[in-house]
Amino acid sequence: MADKLTEDRVRGALGSLPGWSLADGKLHWQHQFADFVEAFGFMSRVALVAESMNHHPDWSNCWATVTIDLVTHDAGGITENDLELARRINDLV
Amino acid sequence: MADKLTEDRVRGALGSLPGWSLADGKLHWQHQFADFVEAFGFMSRVALVAESMNHHPDWSNCWATVTIDLVTHDAGGITENDLELARRINDLV
Amino acid sequence: MADKLTEDRVRGALGSLPGWSLADGKLHWQHQFADFVEAFGFMSRVALVAESMNHHPDWSNCWATVTIDLVTHDAGGITENDLELARRINDLV
Amino acid sequence: MADKLTEDRVRGALGSLPGWSLADGKLHWQHQFADFVEAFGFMSRVALVAESMNHHPDWSNCWATVTIDLVTHDAGGITENDLELARRINDLV
Repeated sequence: MADKLTEDRVRGALGSLPGWSLADGKLHWQHQFADFVEAFGFMSRVALVAESMNHHPDWSNCWATVTIDLVTHDAGGITENDLELARRINDLV
Repeated sequence: MADKLTEDRVRGALGSLPGWSLADGKLHWQHQFADFVEAFGFMSRVALVAESMNHHPDWSNCWATVTIDLVTHDAGGITENDLELARRINDLV
Repeated sequence: MADKLTEDRVRGALGSLPGWSLADGKLHWQHQFADFVEAFGFMSRVALVAESMNHHPDWSNCWATVTIDLVTHDAGGITENDLELARRINDLV
Repeated sequence: MADKLTEDRVRGALGSLPGWSLADGKLHWQHQFADFVEAFGFMSRVALVAESMNHHPDWSNCWATVTIDLVTHDAGGITENDLELARRINDLV
């Protein structure tokens, strides 16, 4: 299992993760798409990536808005898996 | 635009909407699926129904758990559209 | 129900539908995406549009390739609904 | 890479794969769902499983009908990966 990262390590990684911030101990991201079709099409792609990584987001959707929080519940914090999923989400946008 | 329903009307409708409750002025629903694949497959079906109704849920997903809140933001409360979407979601489960 | 269009009407419409051609009496389109994730994300968006129009494509997918044929089976040919779905698919690409 | 299986091996495996047949050197399956929403919801789940296996179907959809052909193009025939994907698809139905 991936280990919980130090806050310093996470803050350092955020430098190369535009759009992500640290909130309540999770990697946080929010984006407003053009409409629901664009938002859910994006979620479908994230779902495919997440399932293939066997690492899934906590996320919510309200029409065109998608909010994602990444944390590794089993590790009690943010791990390299969360950073990797954040990177792959950024590649999809 | 659909009108906001009275709380009495909403509480009456809940009688034929198993799994739904009234929470914070919204129709609230939560279900735990077998895994992420089942949860997201369900969300894909709800998304198709919602887009065809042009009425969308506020919803979140955490692995196998899907949480849905229905409210008509423009009407400032629950409308017939929310009841109809709740019924159609129940038909999908 | 929408009426079957003449071949002249269809050929005229193709002028403003880049990527589409007439094949076997259907509107035909094929695109190669970067990978399966992009291809299926696109299909998810098309599915939402199609369901909301209550007009659906005949389509196939092989990894990154998506092939779409549009025809209105009930009308025995191409109708305005097919042209409209083709236009909306082009807007999604 | 998985090796191409003998036809005997494939025919033997079909005994425990209800709904699947051998057609044109591929594992073939077709199912008619209740409507497009059910059909595409199923496809969304198959897509997640396929991406997580990094092994994808050749498939098509026409409203409520989904047709799937499984073959490993790189191996020039049916492999254990195709049998495994067929099994997992059957688990989803």
